[in-house]
Amino acid sequence: MNDNRKVPKLPSVKRLPSYLHELKLLRDQQQQMVSTTYLAQKLGLEPIIVRKDLELASSTGSPGVGYSVQSLIDGIENFLGWNNETPVVLIGVGNLGTALLGYRGFAEYRFNIIAAFDNDPEKVGSSVHGKPVYHVDYLHDFARNMQIEIAILSVPCEYAQKAAENIANAGLKAIWNFTNTTLNLPPDIVQQRVNMAGDLAELSVKLSGKLWND
Amino acid sequence: MNDNRKVPKLPSVKRLPSYLHELKLLRDQQQQMVSTTYLAQKLGLEPIIVRKDLELASSTGSPGVGYSVQSLIDGIENFLGWNNETPVVLIGVGNLGTALLGYRGFAEYRFNIIAAFDNDPEKVGSSVHGKPVYHVDYLHDFARNMQIEIAILSVPCEYAQKAAENIANAGLKAIWNFTNTTLNLPPDIVQQRVNMAGDLAELSVKLSGKLWND
Repeated sequence: MNDNRKVPKLPSVKRLPSYLHELKLLRDQQQQMVSTTYLAQKLGLEPIIVRKDLELASSTGSPGVGYSVQSLIDGIENFLGWNNETPVVLIGVGNLGTALLGYRGFAEYRFNIIAAFDNDPEKVGSSVHGKPVYHVDYLHDFARNMQIEIAILSVPCEYAQKAAENIANAGLKAIWNFTNTTLNLPPDIVQQRVNMAGDLAELSVKLSGKLWND
Repeated sequence: MNDNRKVPKLPSVKRLPSYLHELKLLRDQQQQMVSTTYLAQKLGLEPIIVRKDLELASSTGSPGVGYSVQSLIDGIENFLGWNNETPVVLIGVGNLGTALLGYRGFAEYRFNIIAAFDNDPEKVGSSVHGKPVYHVDYLHDFARNMQIEIAILSVPCEYAQKAAENIANAGLKAIWNFTNTTLNLPPDIVQQRVNMAGDLAELSVKLSGKLWND
């Protein structure tokens, strides 16, 4: 890792899509410039945090003028690698997988699920929400041909580890794990876990007054 | 807040459902006892972290014997308030709302979406994945009659703030926010945000090598 480059803070990274969302709304309204104060208010943050976050997009605002909306959008998309469409695949066309195939919210971030994979003969060869479902044995060749790096994992828990190993063996580099399972994989495979049950636990405990609301 | 009670750490709280999941698998296999080492390995954590986490469930393991599986399940469910079914409502029966209504994964945590609300005349009066869809104007009475405290918010972003205010005015206490919007609400309303776009940003940046994988 290059010592001259700061390692970005995770909370800042996770907030970038929220800035992007607000900035695109402003662009739709033909707004050219935006102030730190506006973004701070929209995201419920302190202005100092906003300035710090936006350093990741290599943008510095001008005092009294603010930031250029388009430059900020470009800077954030460039930092995240979201300036081009990212093709991804989904493994496991069950209840959750089907829901994710039908979810259009990923498009805002140019994530496009281009195909799904399963091993159920009744599903293979079908199309779900317009996406083709292939047999998992075809994943390796498909990922190579289509240069896919990211797989969404939505199989039942008991198959999660095996399916994740298949994904790694097929040469993919990252797994977005929607299963309630901790995966044991080589360290060069990037893992991102969606922990909806953890969110629910946090909400339950906040509601009971045992944990402060943030 | 009672000074004698420790405030639980958020990461520990968010891990509790993962313990619960593993413990229920063990119970299904008629296992009576479980070791720290086993849970640590399953969750990819250090044993010392596991012991600390499980203190929240008021359980202490015995050296050489481990924890009682059933006591741990009871302790965690009791701590989270998950020993009874939690009835929740969903606001906004669009693409994502429909997916959530069809998602069966909440049942493991006894979260039951008993009704959905929308203001689209074409949706009101219908049933989606077996759940009735009512007009939002009926939320106040319904929530009061059914003693609902938690709403899942899945409306389009531009309606999120208004819908959240409606939920607060209807007397509900917590919002699980699936929209990409920061909500401005009274501090006594518990908010929990699902930030899938933030997860995607984290994954993208890890994949680019700008952020360490954890």
